[in-house]
Amino acid sequence: MTLSVAVTGATGRMGRTVLDVARERGVDVAFAVNRDGDGQHVEGVPVRPAGEFAALLDSEAPDAVVDFTGPESTVEYARACAETGVPLVTGTTGFSEADVAALEEASTETPILVGANFSRGVQALLDAVESAVTDLPEYDVELMETHHNGKRDAPSGTAKILLDRIEGAREGASERVHGREGEAPRDEGEIGVHARRAGDITGEHDVLLAGNHESLELTHRAGSRSVFAEGALDAAAWLAEQSADYYRFETIASQL
Amino acid sequence: MTLSVAVTGATGRMGRTVLDVARERGVDVAFAVNRDGDGQHVEGVPVRPAGEFAALLDSEAPDAVVDFTGPESTVEYARACAETGVPLVTGTTGFSEADVAALEEASTETPILVGANFSRGVQALLDAVESAVTDLPEYDVELMETHHNGKRDAPSGTAKILLDRIEGAREGASERVHGREGEAPRDEGEIGVHARRAGDITGEHDVLLAGNHESLELTHRAGSRSVFAEGALDAAAWLAEQSADYYRFETIASQL
Amino acid sequence: MTLSVAVTGATGRMGRTVLDVARERGVDVAFAVNRDGDGQHVEGVPVRPAGEFAALLDSEAPDAVVDFTGPESTVEYARACAETGVPLVTGTTGFSEADVAALEEASTETPILVGANFSRGVQALLDAVESAVTDLPEYDVELMETHHNGKRDAPSGTAKILLDRIEGAREGASERVHGREGEAPRDEGEIGVHARRAGDITGEHDVLLAGNHESLELTHRAGSRSVFAEGALDAAAWLAEQSADYYRFETIASQL
Amino acid sequence: MTLSVAVTGATGRMGRTVLDVARERGVDVAFAVNRDGDGQHVEGVPVRPAGEFAALLDSEAPDAVVDFTGPESTVEYARACAETGVPLVTGTTGFSEADVAALEEASTETPILVGANFSRGVQALLDAVESAVTDLPEYDVELMETHHNGKRDAPSGTAKILLDRIEGAREGASERVHGREGEAPRDEGEIGVHARRAGDITGEHDVLLAGNHESLELTHRAGSRSVFAEGALDAAAWLAEQSADYYRFETIASQL
Repeated sequence: MTLSVAVTGATGRMGRTVLDVARERGVDVAFAVNRDGDGQHVEGVPVRPAGEFAALLDSEAPDAVVDFTGPESTVEYARACAETGVPLVTGTTGFSEADVAALEEASTETPILVGANFSRGVQALLDAVESAVTDLPEYDVELMETHHNGKRDAPSGTAKILLDRIEGAREGASERVHGREGEAPRDEGEIGVHARRAGDITGEHDVLLAGNHESLELTHRAGSRSVFAEGALDAAAWLAEQSADYYRFETIASQL
Repeated sequence: MTLSVAVTGATGRMGRTVLDVARERGVDVAFAVNRDGDGQHVEGVPVRPAGEFAALLDSEAPDAVVDFTGPESTVEYARACAETGVPLVTGTTGFSEADVAALEEASTETPILVGANFSRGVQALLDAVESAVTDLPEYDVELMETHHNGKRDAPSGTAKILLDRIEGAREGASERVHGREGEAPRDEGEIGVHARRAGDITGEHDVLLAGNHESLELTHRAGSRSVFAEGALDAAAWLAEQSADYYRFETIASQL
Repeated sequence: MTLSVAVTGATGRMGRTVLDVARERGVDVAFAVNRDGDGQHVEGVPVRPAGEFAALLDSEAPDAVVDFTGPESTVEYARACAETGVPLVTGTTGFSEADVAALEEASTETPILVGANFSRGVQALLDAVESAVTDLPEYDVELMETHHNGKRDAPSGTAKILLDRIEGAREGASERVHGREGEAPRDEGEIGVHARRAGDITGEHDVLLAGNHESLELTHRAGSRSVFAEGALDAAAWLAEQSADYYRFETIASQL
Repeated sequence: MTLSVAVTGATGRMGRTVLDVARERGVDVAFAVNRDGDGQHVEGVPVRPAGEFAALLDSEAPDAVVDFTGPESTVEYARACAETGVPLVTGTTGFSEADVAALEEASTETPILVGANFSRGVQALLDAVESAVTDLPEYDVELMETHHNGKRDAPSGTAKILLDRIEGAREGASERVHGREGEAPRDEGEIGVHARRAGDITGEHDVLLAGNHESLELTHRAGSRSVFAEGALDAAAWLAEQSADYYRFETIASQL
């Protein structure tokens, strides 16, 4: 059976890409919305105002919602999904603790899947980094991520997942340092986190380990936003078969 | 007790580095030889002619020999070690099948340990590459290694170990291609192997995986030959306690 | 006035991208052809058989033709352009000497512009490489290029232009070596040329200079084929105003 | 005639390297000092207390002083040099405006040469970066430098010179941003500056330009501190022939 999805943030960078990949893959788009929905078309799909989202969920009954917007919008969409029982896949990042609590509450009524990065290559990077940090526990670690100049938050959600994985693989406490200037000696256990913003780079994540006259550097580069849209649609197809719960992409990626 | 080693190829790049690191670490140098040993001193140690090697093994009785020379010399030194029962650690690369057979024969009399790369970072690279290739089995793989302009063989011994590990982690046959020119379409399963030679670069190994609009690149850089000398001396201390057999550094590295 | 172009190789990777960018920029597409033109549509444009190319040039009279095909096709299209006086911009690479002679002959009748790479970043790379090679004349140079696994020729046309520029900036003869295997000592003056092929990487070119305990590495990455289509359309607009001659993109890029 | 130098900071990382390279090159070491000079020997040279520096300048009369210490020490050494008319080459970084004023005052009495980086490769990087920024004036620029975990100041002196050169090549004001965290949208004209600290990496400087679906990345890696010691000794030989003035390495490097 053909998957049917609703797409939020339809005029944004990722929303457009989701609609584009949906068309290429023959996924049915039940409807699309965005905050200023004014009837324009993206990839041949009319964009409706966000205010109509709840009503459209009812009338169009998509298999899942695919959302790449902002924390505030995502929480609102998740609440509407909870009321109608439609699963929600979101790639939004930058959630506050309150936002996460709201999503978890919604996930008691409908499946909610959160992913900071829907690419398989990033999942492979996470595994490779964990392996390297385990093999070289006393080496210094520095993380760098690079994104287009329109990205507003730093570090990226993917960088945060990488940091969690690095810290989980090392013993002892570690401290994240975001930039260094002036007198800034490095503490043992410190992890430097660097966010480059330039041009329209889709996304690059780089982990450096160094010690004992050598270094190991692991780098992932996303060549196109399509890779994220494809992963999100794969996740939507999977989520449509699940029961209400809070899921993370990194823990279910190997099942796709 | 202080470790005592004999060093071959004492005036070569790696021989000098082994003598330098031995001095820094307080390892006792029983004697040093090289092919043209003419009484010059390296790091304060007199260099004797290779022809005296067997006699010196007898009279000085070192705990182990540390050898970074060429295939022919290594085989000769290994035979002398077999006669006296002195363990041999060698970082020589480029052995023919006949050379390996000769080393294996010697290893029935005394412990012989062969390592293409004595750095822990390279061992970590091997593990990370295996993890990535397993996670992304259908992605294309290309390997690049970069060494100083005096290196005569290609690809490096470390590159060959990487290739073995990659092929072991993938299903199906693969073909190693060393350079491409003219009409050179890529076959599925092909692994491109590229050897850069420039300046006095100590050693860099890089594995690229790419597919589905993304790439993952894993890079190891040796900052100094000291890292190899340190690993070789660690291996010598370990080997001095073992019984006669043929050992590979990559399988015992985690015990150091 | 709106630019009007004809697009060849319309169903190929670059042909599709040219049609996509033309639509985004409001460039008029007079017609599109490809070898197996069978009436399918690309970006809403019907694709006609290559055999109708000459007749369509007459009837549709585009301002220029934009061509990314293969050497044989390009030469045929150039001959038809010469007969009708329509300018031709081509990004095809891998021409034989006979092909170049045929293009030069066509350029006595109509403007022909050949470019191996229509990006401004690559032009900037060429200038930066020339600067570095001039500053470090005795350092070893190695070139690496990386492209998608469907690219059939090696090295890339852009790599050849880089090599010409490097050789022009250095004194003395140099030899291009495409891959190294086995006993392969590096000659002074040698330039190693390495072609990686993997996944769907758009295009990466990297020049390494090394000597005296240091290295300098200059890397260009194309994030999307759009950058080449945009440069080709800019070149087409410029070429439509020129008189018959043989032009190279790298010498006119600064006028765009 | 053999060059004769005095070396300060003789037990520091760079001081040791200067003494090592001096020995290799046959440069005469008139004397060596450091803050805690207690009679130990480095590379066979006795290390004297810094308090004896002025008296030793008088009695030993070296052709030049080579100094890699800290701002406070360098200013004191420069004052003593001014009194005796001995030229001073310094690779110290992190000077305050008051420090620079003190050095300039000393340079009215004796030649003072300041260099943040004595490598020719870095000078080549500066030229290549200027070329690239000029060719791609509207592209975003981000700078990253990586050094060993014992480096206390950030960004490196070399990074500051790179930033000056970048800003000189672009029109309009620019703002240097040292790290990004949380809500951190990028302003046009902003230059991100990132300082990685890890292991014993000698020094890496990387400039990224990105825009229009492409990026250009220029990277310099120092393989060994020898490259800086060699440049400093070359500069000392040159400075011994000059008259009193304030010199910068980057403006005189091409004369070496």
